[in-house]
Amino acid sequence: MNGKDLISIRDLERKDIEGLFSLAEKMEGEIGGEKSPLKNRIIATLFFEPSTRTRLSFQAAAQRLGASVINFESVALTSMAKGETFVDTIKIVDGYADLLVIRHSLEGSARLAANVAKHPVANGGDGGNQHPTQTLIDLYTIRKVKKKLDGLCVHLVGDLKYARTMRSLLYGLGMFGADVTLVSPKGLEMDKGVVDEAKTLFSMKIKQTNELDLKGADVAYVCRIQKERFADPYEAEKLQKEFKITEEQLKGVKEDLVILHPLPKIDEIDPAIDNSKHATYFEQAKLGVPMRMAIIMKLLGRA
Amino acid sequence: MNGKDLISIRDLERKDIEGLFSLAEKMEGEIGGEKSPLKNRIIATLFFEPSTRTRLSFQAAAQRLGASVINFESVALTSMAKGETFVDTIKIVDGYADLLVIRHSLEGSARLAANVAKHPVANGGDGGNQHPTQTLIDLYTIRKVKKKLDGLCVHLVGDLKYARTMRSLLYGLGMFGADVTLVSPKGLEMDKGVVDEAKTLFSMKIKQTNELDLKGADVAYVCRIQKERFADPYEAEKLQKEFKITEEQLKGVKEDLVILHPLPKIDEIDPAIDNSKHATYFEQAKLGVPMRMAIIMKLLGRA
Amino acid sequence: MNGKDLISIRDLERKDIEGLFSLAEKMEGEIGGEKSPLKNRIIATLFFEPSTRTRLSFQAAAQRLGASVINFESVALTSMAKGETFVDTIKIVDGYADLLVIRHSLEGSARLAANVAKHPVANGGDGGNQHPTQTLIDLYTIRKVKKKLDGLCVHLVGDLKYARTMRSLLYGLGMFGADVTLVSPKGLEMDKGVVDEAKTLFSMKIKQTNELDLKGADVAYVCRIQKERFADPYEAEKLQKEFKITEEQLKGVKEDLVILHPLPKIDEIDPAIDNSKHATYFEQAKLGVPMRMAIIMKLLGRA
Repeated sequence: MNGKDLISIRDLERKDIEGLFSLAEKMEGEIGGEKSPLKNRIIATLFFEPSTRTRLSFQAAAQRLGASVINFESVALTSMAKGETFVDTIKIVDGYADLLVIRHSLEGSARLAANVAKHPVANGGDGGNQHPTQTLIDLYTIRKVKKKLDGLCVHLVGDLKYARTMRSLLYGLGMFGADVTLVSPKGLEMDKGVVDEAKTLFSMKIKQTNELDLKGADVAYVCRIQKERFADPYEAEKLQKEFKITEEQLKGVKEDLVILHPLPKIDEIDPAIDNSKHATYFEQAKLGVPMRMAIIMKLLGRA
Repeated sequence: MNGKDLISIRDLERKDIEGLFSLAEKMEGEIGGEKSPLKNRIIATLFFEPSTRTRLSFQAAAQRLGASVINFESVALTSMAKGETFVDTIKIVDGYADLLVIRHSLEGSARLAANVAKHPVANGGDGGNQHPTQTLIDLYTIRKVKKKLDGLCVHLVGDLKYARTMRSLLYGLGMFGADVTLVSPKGLEMDKGVVDEAKTLFSMKIKQTNELDLKGADVAYVCRIQKERFADPYEAEKLQKEFKITEEQLKGVKEDLVILHPLPKIDEIDPAIDNSKHATYFEQAKLGVPMRMAIIMKLLGRA
Repeated sequence: MNGKDLISIRDLERKDIEGLFSLAEKMEGEIGGEKSPLKNRIIATLFFEPSTRTRLSFQAAAQRLGASVINFESVALTSMAKGETFVDTIKIVDGYADLLVIRHSLEGSARLAANVAKHPVANGGDGGNQHPTQTLIDLYTIRKVKKKLDGLCVHLVGDLKYARTMRSLLYGLGMFGADVTLVSPKGLEMDKGVVDEAKTLFSMKIKQTNELDLKGADVAYVCRIQKERFADPYEAEKLQKEFKITEEQLKGVKEDLVILHPLPKIDEIDPAIDNSKHATYFEQAKLGVPMRMAIIMKLLGRA
């Protein structure tokens, strides 16, 4: 991974990820310290699709290391088919910065950027495809809070058909030996091909259900029902209500159940739960900074 | 104030403000120097309502101290009643940064943010309510230029009913023993309750008038007639014309009259006056940087 | 130039530009190094007209030197005739920063800003008038790649009537003894007064043609046909097609022909050429950073 790109979680081996866990832990310890290993270095954050949290988290990570940020935000109006503008933008910014973070609504854009740029590229999310730094944060958070990943019972809850993070997360959980229960409304199940592949690759236990029941779970990872995918918004709201995490839903769950969410959340979790001992999503967001510090250091060949 | 929040000028005692005066003076001397006391620290500027000058001034202050800035600008589309999004945003950014500067169109939002965030919060203006850093800059500027606040004759001119800065400024002037004349169009007088409270609290002399006459004034603090509050824009323009500071209006005023304005100004002051010895509003804007440096240092417990 | 402004290429003498060449070369060597000569300094980038590349390049240059950036972007809605707002903005930001970079759609705005600001002002492009840092980058790139400017055969290709960069570039090329061929569609020739003046000032050889033929050229500098200037967009597209650089057009050109473009490019150069040995425009964009570093250092009197 040194000096290379981070495009997909699938480019990483278990030992790469374990290396990032250690490095992120070290980075946590250095926040607030005097070291500026990336002094005078420039990280470019190129957001062709808005994503405030990913942008701020990467910028904070860069700046905690002493680096500066140049930022470009633009809605990609033209199709990638036309292409020139995107590739030209990447080539130009590649001449200004030491590392490029790219967010784009179209699948494959980060890989294309990596092919074109001489400097390392980190994928900050490309459409429904990959969002590897999010997956690394998710795994890091679970491991940090639970002290392990192996043998944990993790429920993935919500729209598993369209949610970007869930496929990569399943893959990552498999790699580290967790057991997974897929919990989704009917019709929003995770793609069978993805599930079968994970079973084959990691001999992992995967259950599937259309009923939300968190009783046996160590971790519940919740994501949004994407209303904009529904012809009938009323149907979407009904489903969201059924799959919403409420205090009622938390009756009888394990004492140390951990609830995660990639944020921003809207209707998926009752705000009353934010103050419960289970809610770990703000801690998860916070851990994004040291993990992204680790990723930046690694991609720049500095760790 | 160390390590706490700055939400309202009313949270401060006279000795706190005097401490900020001294610290701001020290900061002025350090602009352009080599010290970076806040190296690797991150200040988040969260602007739910646009305010270019406040944003740039806070960012410059943070950067003069060696800190970095992450910035978020968004128009608050939803009412605070809904709430979740604002509180979630604060909690997330609280995980990224060491101090949060918040500007929002709704009263009470900064206080809410302070309740939610673990890091210090500085109120960068919340609706018509409070804008304490502006008031501190105003007091600091007067004291710096006039060498004192006690016993000065300060005219507050313009729309005293709606202008955010004027109530806090009256309070601050009272605390430091200045005499105040309130000059406003009929119907735009300052709220009687506010005036009475200031008289009671500080036994201060307050005159009220609907005629602009700056002859006895040491300081004229001018603010905008908020046209958007008028049903009839023609009426607003007529009033603005009557309360505009022109060369004519400055005949017979004290040699060392100081004119201040929170900026941006539009029609309130004839541009011809910008080059006069009385115009002190650009100096006032400039002093915003060392005062905000002082505030940041104080809130971070570093001074 | 020390401690002054950079508004027009015409304010510079040949020895000033040669000094910038040397300094830019030194700056290239220092990118990635440990020196932060502008630590705690603030550069303001004020963009009253969008220009992503110029903005990012200036920001990167400032940050490579250890400086911080405050940024303001706004579409200038009001005419300069009204004026107050622009001048006020400059005066306010002048109180926050050590150097101001200004981009505006109206001619003369940078000069006006320089008259008003106490700190140095760099013109980042003011309408169709001047874009001196671009011209300096252009000359620097040619000199760097070709090892000289004197005696080179440089073709300026495209809309020479409206393109901002071309007049200044002609002037700069004349100053350094290059020969120029002006290649434009009929009706888009460079203004006769500008051409005659260049001939008189520098006794330079200038050919003019309406046919694109790069056979004798050492350098082809290509710019866009500005479609928005045409009543008939079809006519503009037809012209663009005729003056487009294609593989066909490059048959028989010199082995070491260098193609430059200020970027962004749209239709002017076939993307297939991006990977040819002739394409030097991304290198040119990259060289913008060290040249702007040199300009910033010079304007701040630090070199």
